[in-house]
Amino acid sequence: MGATRNFEFTPVEEVSTCENSEAKYRYVIVRAPVLAGIPLKCFVWMLETGLTASFLKPKLLRDNLITRFFSTAKYKEPPMYIAQYPEELVKLNQNEDGLIQVLHSTPPAERVKAALTCLPSVKLHRQESFRYWTIRDYADAYRQGSVTPTKAAERFLSAVKESNEHEPRMNFFISYDEKDILRQAQESTARYLKGEPLSVLDGVPIAVKDEIDCLPYPTTGGSKWLHNVRKTEDDAACIKRLRECGAVLVGKTNMHELGMGTTSVNPHYGAPRNPYGPDRITGGSSGGSAAAVASGLVPAALGVDGGGSVRMPAGLCGVVGMKATFGRTSNAGIIPLNWTIGMLGTLTATVEDALIMYAAVLGHLPGDRIVSIPPPATFPASLDFPKAEASKLVGELKIANYSEWFDDSDENVKHGCQRALDLLQQAYGNKIIEVTIPEIEEMRLAHFITMGSECYASLGSDYENVGMDASGADVRVGFALYKAFNNVDFIAAQRMRFRQMHFFMDIFKRADVIVTPVTGCTAPPVTDESLKYGELNYVTGAKLMRYQIPGNFLGLPAISVPVGHDQYGIPIGLQIIGRPWAEATVLQLAAAIEDLCAPMKKRPEVLYDILMRN
Amino acid sequence: MGATRNFEFTPVEEVSTCENSEAKYRYVIVRAPVLAGIPLKCFVWMLETGLTASFLKPKLLRDNLITRFFSTAKYKEPPMYIAQYPEELVKLNQNEDGLIQVLHSTPPAERVKAALTCLPSVKLHRQESFRYWTIRDYADAYRQGSVTPTKAAERFLSAVKESNEHEPRMNFFISYDEKDILRQAQESTARYLKGEPLSVLDGVPIAVKDEIDCLPYPTTGGSKWLHNVRKTEDDAACIKRLRECGAVLVGKTNMHELGMGTTSVNPHYGAPRNPYGPDRITGGSSGGSAAAVASGLVPAALGVDGGGSVRMPAGLCGVVGMKATFGRTSNAGIIPLNWTIGMLGTLTATVEDALIMYAAVLGHLPGDRIVSIPPPATFPASLDFPKAEASKLVGELKIANYSEWFDDSDENVKHGCQRALDLLQQAYGNKIIEVTIPEIEEMRLAHFITMGSECYASLGSDYENVGMDASGADVRVGFALYKAFNNVDFIAAQRMRFRQMHFFMDIFKRADVIVTPVTGCTAPPVTDESLKYGELNYVTGAKLMRYQIPGNFLGLPAISVPVGHDQYGIPIGLQIIGRPWAEATVLQLAAAIEDLCAPMKKRPEVLYDILMRN
Repeated sequence: MGATRNFEFTPVEEVSTCENSEAKYRYVIVRAPVLAGIPLKCFVWMLETGLTASFLKPKLLRDNLITRFFSTAKYKEPPMYIAQYPEELVKLNQNEDGLIQVLHSTPPAERVKAALTCLPSVKLHRQESFRYWTIRDYADAYRQGSVTPTKAAERFLSAVKESNEHEPRMNFFISYDEKDILRQAQESTARYLKGEPLSVLDGVPIAVKDEIDCLPYPTTGGSKWLHNVRKTEDDAACIKRLRECGAVLVGKTNMHELGMGTTSVNPHYGAPRNPYGPDRITGGSSGGSAAAVASGLVPAALGVDGGGSVRMPAGLCGVVGMKATFGRTSNAGIIPLNWTIGMLGTLTATVEDALIMYAAVLGHLPGDRIVSIPPPATFPASLDFPKAEASKLVGELKIANYSEWFDDSDENVKHGCQRALDLLQQAYGNKIIEVTIPEIEEMRLAHFITMGSECYASLGSDYENVGMDASGADVRVGFALYKAFNNVDFIAAQRMRFRQMHFFMDIFKRADVIVTPVTGCTAPPVTDESLKYGELNYVTGAKLMRYQIPGNFLGLPAISVPVGHDQYGIPIGLQIIGRPWAEATVLQLAAAIEDLCAPMKKRPEVLYDILMRN
Repeated sequence: MGATRNFEFTPVEEVSTCENSEAKYRYVIVRAPVLAGIPLKCFVWMLETGLTASFLKPKLLRDNLITRFFSTAKYKEPPMYIAQYPEELVKLNQNEDGLIQVLHSTPPAERVKAALTCLPSVKLHRQESFRYWTIRDYADAYRQGSVTPTKAAERFLSAVKESNEHEPRMNFFISYDEKDILRQAQESTARYLKGEPLSVLDGVPIAVKDEIDCLPYPTTGGSKWLHNVRKTEDDAACIKRLRECGAVLVGKTNMHELGMGTTSVNPHYGAPRNPYGPDRITGGSSGGSAAAVASGLVPAALGVDGGGSVRMPAGLCGVVGMKATFGRTSNAGIIPLNWTIGMLGTLTATVEDALIMYAAVLGHLPGDRIVSIPPPATFPASLDFPKAEASKLVGELKIANYSEWFDDSDENVKHGCQRALDLLQQAYGNKIIEVTIPEIEEMRLAHFITMGSECYASLGSDYENVGMDASGADVRVGFALYKAFNNVDFIAAQRMRFRQMHFFMDIFKRADVIVTPVTGCTAPPVTDESLKYGELNYVTGAKLMRYQIPGNFLGLPAISVPVGHDQYGIPIGLQIIGRPWAEATVLQLAAAIEDLCAPMKKRPEVLYDILMRN
């Protein structure tokens, strides 16, 4: 074997992240067949059968550069197994002026109360053509007595039924229990009658991705078997916190089977439909949660984000998706699809509600996989635009953009996102810094290796024991590939994690946030073929996940915010990625952009008006 | 595949570490051939050749329970990629009363000065029959002018030559540069003439394992090729610190090739010999360092401990070997044989000198792979035995013992170590707590998978590019096996790391230290066969490494201290394992035991008297 056969990465200190870096943007060429129907069935069989697998799997690894960039590549950097933030940076964020600091140990309801102090008094956004009801709208209606939580729950239940009679069927939920929902709502109604609501979230219907433990439901993860192997015996940590705030948990939303895909088209529970175009996918894997919010059924939902699984469907469905810094929230009671990449996220109709939900669910627990104790959480100083205080803070934010990456998206997406940035610059005069992020494609592959390896380690033996026939094609292809990686691939992927952490921290020395589109395209149609047999489409998958990976692989806080629609009225989203622990910054900027883009907001095709409904 | 085929680990919270635990001690049955000579050559060929390897490697993994306990086992625990100590425990150790606290940022010479305040005034140990010269003896001689550093260096050089003319040749060093050694010594002599020595270490000869970068030498790692691929351009962090203290670095010691074995028998640089029996091995991989100290050539040496590689040869050669907590010292400038397991260690003739060396080399650097910033280092309150203060502190230490593990050693080792414990109890009345450490054998395998996988990821491609013929049999067998693990094995090994961290922390709630023999047997003979072709003996290897793994895999501070000799005069060592960051406790207890065992100390067969020599 000659020395020249090994690809050798330049030492990380010698790679520039500045505008004229020698590191070049790599346009992705995913070398995998796009298959559905019978050809997909054959492909699954070949991947699962000894002789063909022994030829096909190494070929896929080679063709897709896994062999070149991982199995045989030379790195100078050590592995970074869990996202590990430089200590200086943590200190930097702790000193941020004017922000509200909240300890992780503060009770959820108190944190939510603190979050409310950041918000403007309820008002119509500037020239807005359409807006969703917010959590505060629910609370106001309950307090004024125009609606009770019980009434809202009844309307929710009738609306869900309606959605399932819609043509096509909307498939938002995998399960919901009428009796349990009404019981919670009645308890909340009783609290309001006594004048003692627990928080602004009391009585507010919130949907939960079926990857999060929430009694009395089994946690299917979108599968037909996982809930039989892994019993749900308690609420997840985030659910407990929401209950402390009085929220009414209204059932488990549909998702891509075991999170192993980007469409949420589920062979067992149907394809959830995009409220802005019911022929379109919702994105995934938290598709049901995104669509439930986008259709107005709930003002907020929980999701889990392992490869953009919250931000991406939020972007495709025109709502706000947020994930905090890795370690900021607890994964206790969430299916361990992996340990170092996925984490809780929130889907809400507005940025204001992203803040309220974040305030409710944050906080780590002793058993969590974190590298060091997180610093106190911070809330934005003010989300009251365009008032002077909030505007000044927004205008000071330095925004990094890697144009080649930003522009590697469909024309309509690119223009929609650029317009939002232009509006921001006009309004607040933000400084935009052109940067280079080296090795984005390598990071995508490293993320895939890590996610897949951890997933196989976590669920592989159960998957095989249950029998592979119990799973859909996406899951079967996934597990077959995840098993093909070796120990060196896995460790090399963690060396790539080290490199990327270095690159991003280097950029954060010069900029406060990095902006990108949420996805490379707007929501594509659901195909008939995929409904029948499932669909293997890593090509569209890569386009949908193009901008999501740093938030997961490096554990950075990130938010997606709607900034308009394409020519068919399908939503376009902008993503803001922040420094570790700087959730406040990300929320502050997102609120400003949401405010500026309010005039572009369109009404979804499928919409249920819970507060006004009969 | 039936559900019963997967071995299922009991959830960690349900496994007891108390005396009557249901967890049973597993006597090791290593299923690997013991080979040397031609059969070993054939075995290497079979492992490196496609067809036979594809059959042999999976068989070895199955036979040795890797498949059962890792590839297919079911765990409830997440992976712990780097030893991660519970935050409560860190706080606990920071509050220790009466200890001297030293920040990592304090200059090395000042730390060494602080360490001296813990020491008794120089005195003869009780009834001791033989003792080595200590660092303070060197400093005293230099100050009094009875010897100069230059004179000591000249004597050192002539003694090394003598050792290489010894029959058998002692092979302590891979390289030493007369000119460079004399230059350092002359500079030190000049400082003494001016009355300005830098510290007690000024002018003291210190040997360095050839795994640590130390100019002007190449860092071979005991190989014939690594120094050509990985150039030495700077001193390692620990070497810089020793230079700041004025130490004279006297060359690079012999070691097991790339640390991949326990004998230090090196096909390229010869077998270093045990000064207590030159027909015996030194142990390894830091064998040359241990033997250089045991022969009196130097009072202290540096080693690297990845699987007992410091403590074990120290035990076999009758000197003191110490490794601190993972993260307490920096690995910068040490060959990255792995990233999460190996770390710097010191070999000294006495516990007092272990403290001085520890004081000199401690401190992390920003680039180190650590989970969180270490708390300040602590030094023992006093090592002055049997005075009241030190004795009281020692008597309060609660000592954990897992008898079945402790007793799984040869009769002479067991009795030697038990006698030391008996002496301790008689003198200070320590409370001994019987405990159970579950899954010790599983931990050994998990450590092997982790070490091997990280080693292959780090050096595998260089090893292959250079050509496998450049390496000895141990290395070739090692790399062939390391490559056989997959991603799931590696991650499962990190779940075992989580389990073991839980078990050990549970024990440390009840006890301050855990004691074991250093090794399962005393130093075995060097065989003729192994000298010619190398030797594959994982069976003896497992016996030598039996008690070493927790120090590495869990990153715990540990020290080995000589407690007597077997019937042939070969040394026996006792190991003390402490809580994370509790180096002071470990040193305190070791000093007490050393003091009690002083009457048993024997003179080595090969001894060079640097301070008295002509």
